[in-house]
Amino acid sequence: MKLVRFGARGAEKPGLVAADGRIKDCSAHVADYDHAFFAGDGLERVRSFAARPDRLPDAPAGVRLGAPVARPRNVFAIGLNYSDHAKETGAAIPAEPILFMKATSAVCGPHDPILIPRGSEKTDWEVELGVVIGRDAHYLPSKEAARGHIAGYCVANDVSERSFQLEHGGQWSKGKSSLNFLPLGPWLVTPDDIPDPQQLGLRLDVNGTRRQTGTTASMIFDVLHIVHYLSQFLVLEAGDVIITGTPPGVGMGMKPPQFLRAGDVVELAIDGLGSQRSVCEPG
Amino acid sequence: MKLVRFGARGAEKPGLVAADGRIKDCSAHVADYDHAFFAGDGLERVRSFAARPDRLPDAPAGVRLGAPVARPRNVFAIGLNYSDHAKETGAAIPAEPILFMKATSAVCGPHDPILIPRGSEKTDWEVELGVVIGRDAHYLPSKEAARGHIAGYCVANDVSERSFQLEHGGQWSKGKSSLNFLPLGPWLVTPDDIPDPQQLGLRLDVNGTRRQTGTTASMIFDVLHIVHYLSQFLVLEAGDVIITGTPPGVGMGMKPPQFLRAGDVVELAIDGLGSQRSVCEPG
Repeated sequence: MKLVRFGARGAEKPGLVAADGRIKDCSAHVADYDHAFFAGDGLERVRSFAARPDRLPDAPAGVRLGAPVARPRNVFAIGLNYSDHAKETGAAIPAEPILFMKATSAVCGPHDPILIPRGSEKTDWEVELGVVIGRDAHYLPSKEAARGHIAGYCVANDVSERSFQLEHGGQWSKGKSSLNFLPLGPWLVTPDDIPDPQQLGLRLDVNGTRRQTGTTASMIFDVLHIVHYLSQFLVLEAGDVIITGTPPGVGMGMKPPQFLRAGDVVELAIDGLGSQRSVCEPG
Repeated sequence: MKLVRFGARGAEKPGLVAADGRIKDCSAHVADYDHAFFAGDGLERVRSFAARPDRLPDAPAGVRLGAPVARPRNVFAIGLNYSDHAKETGAAIPAEPILFMKATSAVCGPHDPILIPRGSEKTDWEVELGVVIGRDAHYLPSKEAARGHIAGYCVANDVSERSFQLEHGGQWSKGKSSLNFLPLGPWLVTPDDIPDPQQLGLRLDVNGTRRQTGTTASMIFDVLHIVHYLSQFLVLEAGDVIITGTPPGVGMGMKPPQFLRAGDVVELAIDGLGSQRSVCEPG
């Protein structure tokens, strides 16, 4: 099942993608894909009417897509989770997941512009597998128990300003939280449509040139490990988003480093999860 | 004006503290003290009926207090913002504000138990001035412009697990985000009742022994500086909480270090903003 949200920013409606690719409007049945929806078994409700998409109205043709989930209560991010990316940044392989957070105001739609912040000279790209939490998780007893707490997966671009992140005080959130620094989507794909989240190819192009290529098979800590691990330190809440690290090929790692400028086109995709296309604009 | 939220966890109602100290129920007039409230000039609406508290019903006697604001969209935190605290931790004086984030699920009421996370041996205290954003702020042109974006101030305890924070991967959020790691309140005090937020004494006792004593006059970066500064990197949204750093006297800085155990009583207060009292319990 592929969930989407469509419409003007801040006024998105919940929908789903039918087998023929058309976007169907679910707003007569569910309010939004938010904390209450996931915590209240909303996914089962959608499944009940998703079987008959012909009974759902079409979304307007060419409508904007928003992030496939409503504003999450938290955006958690795992750093340096691909051994080859850790190498390109010069960092050591982490012994356990590195957690940082992004401001939730960074979330935007999959094709919204990437806004280059004022004063930025080092805005960079990071294709990542996004995980959406389906049920609150705290002190999970095992990795296997994490499986029941995942609502689905999506493409994420963990846009990062390297100077803000690394040259202004040592903690990363400052370089991870600018407006539109987290395009999500196009869809939230439920786990039944993703047989193995650790066998997904990821790729990212800038202006048509391939910059990142990877597979989630190369994660140091897999999705179940991350969800189980984080639940030992904090409460993961239904609707929260976890982005799980990026494969090699970021601009910071190029020789010489290369960063995004207004007018650049960033395209990224993950197997089975669709693709994003964003144009860079001044913030 | 002093705003409170009272009632069972997750079902708090908005209220205010009358001049005689009684808590009045405002739920017939406003839904909650959340993003929509602050963004929609809710404070002015409360002010209009706060002048006649006799017309408002009393809250139940002895009712639990929640955090004085609804779940914020983000909790931003400034690290090492008192020069004498930076010294006790052995860190350099920061050249600009250090930003990290706490999970919003850490927010709790001012007298709720401090929950010692499972496996924790280094749960520590930090009295801090909390700032609540009143209007969205992005690229503010000056420090002075920040003044109009502040809804008010409150007492905050930035509870921190030092091992999770410092010995498990380098980024701080992991040790700052456990359940009940951010008691807020008792009240949100509007700026008209705080003539100078940079002249407030702060103190914290553990089991009746004074551990922290400080004044916001010793902040390296003052409140207006922080709000203006953060707005250059991200969008501060109405209802967001910023905690602004702690004065010296945390457990990690004692010789030998001392940390919280179940049964310990933590009391903290800031001039004009009231006090918290929390008992530590196993998480």
